[in-house]
Amino acid sequence: MAATQTERDALLARLHRIEGQVRGIARMVDGGAYCIDVLTQVSASTRALQSVGLLLLDEHLHHCLAEAAQAGGGVHDEKVKEASAAIARLVRS
Amino acid sequence: MAATQTERDALLARLHRIEGQVRGIARMVDGGAYCIDVLTQVSASTRALQSVGLLLLDEHLHHCLAEAAQAGGGVHDEKVKEASAAIARLVRS
Amino acid sequence: MAATQTERDALLARLHRIEGQVRGIARMVDGGAYCIDVLTQVSASTRALQSVGLLLLDEHLHHCLAEAAQAGGGVHDEKVKEASAAIARLVRS
Amino acid sequence: MAATQTERDALLARLHRIEGQVRGIARMVDGGAYCIDVLTQVSASTRALQSVGLLLLDEHLHHCLAEAAQAGGGVHDEKVKEASAAIARLVRS
Repeated sequence: MAATQTERDALLARLHRIEGQVRGIARMVDGGAYCIDVLTQVSASTRALQSVGLLLLDEHLHHCLAEAAQAGGGVHDEKVKEASAAIARLVRS
Repeated sequence: MAATQTERDALLARLHRIEGQVRGIARMVDGGAYCIDVLTQVSASTRALQSVGLLLLDEHLHHCLAEAAQAGGGVHDEKVKEASAAIARLVRS
Repeated sequence: MAATQTERDALLARLHRIEGQVRGIARMVDGGAYCIDVLTQVSASTRALQSVGLLLLDEHLHHCLAEAAQAGGGVHDEKVKEASAAIARLVRS
Repeated sequence: MAATQTERDALLARLHRIEGQVRGIARMVDGGAYCIDVLTQVSASTRALQSVGLLLLDEHLHHCLAEAAQAGGGVHDEKVKEASAAIARLVRS
C-alpha cells in the first residue's frame, strides 16, 4: 500500500468508527431494539465500509498510474485485471 | 424485535465476527498490506453486513405477516411503507 | 400481480424509459463516446431498474399483508421465504 | 473510447440483449405476471447492466494505464479522480 501516513490514519479512523458502529448494532440486537432501527444502522455501516473500499481503490489507482508512468511502455494487463476484479467484488457486494 | 433467543444469538455471533473482520482490516491497513488484499476483506465484510440486514428483514416480514393475520382486516400502509424504505436503504447501500 | 391499472401504467412508463436509456447507451458505445460518459448512463439506468424493483416489492408486500389479514391465523412461511429471496437477489444485484 | 471493434461489438450485443430483457419485463407487467417473477427478471437485468459497467471500466483502466505509460512522469490526478467518481457511482447504484 503506497498510502501516505495521513491517508492511512484517515482510513484507520474510519475503520475504528465502523468497528464501533458494528458493536453498537450488536448492542441494539441484544437489547431487543426494533428491527427497522437496527436495519437503518446496518445500512449506514455497509455504506461506510463501501466508502473505505472506494478510498482504497482511489489510492490504488493513483499508485498504479504513477507506476505505469514511471515504468513506461509495456503492458499492464495484470494490474488492470487485478483492479477490475477488485472493483467487481465491490460492486457486487 | 420479535426474534427468538436463538435467532438473536445467531445475529450476535455474526455481528461479533464482522466486528473482528473490521478490526482485522484496520490491522492490515496499519501494517501496510497490499491495497487489493485489503479491498478483498472490505468486500467480504460488506457482504457479511448485508447478510445480517437480509436476516433482520426476513424476521421483520415474518413478524409483520403474523401480526397482520392476527389483527385481521384494515390497512397496513404504515408497516409496508416502513419496510419498503428499509429495503430501499439496504438495496442502495 | 395485484397492482391497480394506475400502478401498472406507472411501471410500464418507467420500463419504456429504461428501454430507451439502454438503447441510448448502445448508440453512445456505437458512436465511440467517452467511456466515463457511457458509465454515467449505465449507472443511471441501473439505478432506474432498481427503483422499478423496489416499487414491485412495495406492491408485493402490500398484497401479502392484505392477504394475510384476510386469511387470518396460520403460517405464512412460504410467502416470507419467497419475498426474502427476492429481496436478497435485488440487494445482491 | 479506445475499445477495439471486437470489444465494441461485444458491448453492443450485451446492450441489445438487455434492451430485450427490459422489453420482456414490460410485457410481463402488462400481462399481469406474478410480482416475484417480474422481480427475478429485474434483478437479472440489473446485474447484466452492471456487467456492462464493469467491462467499460476495465477498458477504461487499460486505456488510462497505457496512456500514463506513454506520457511518462507527471501527475494523473484528474484521470484518477474521474475514474474513482465513476466507480463510486457504479458501486452505489
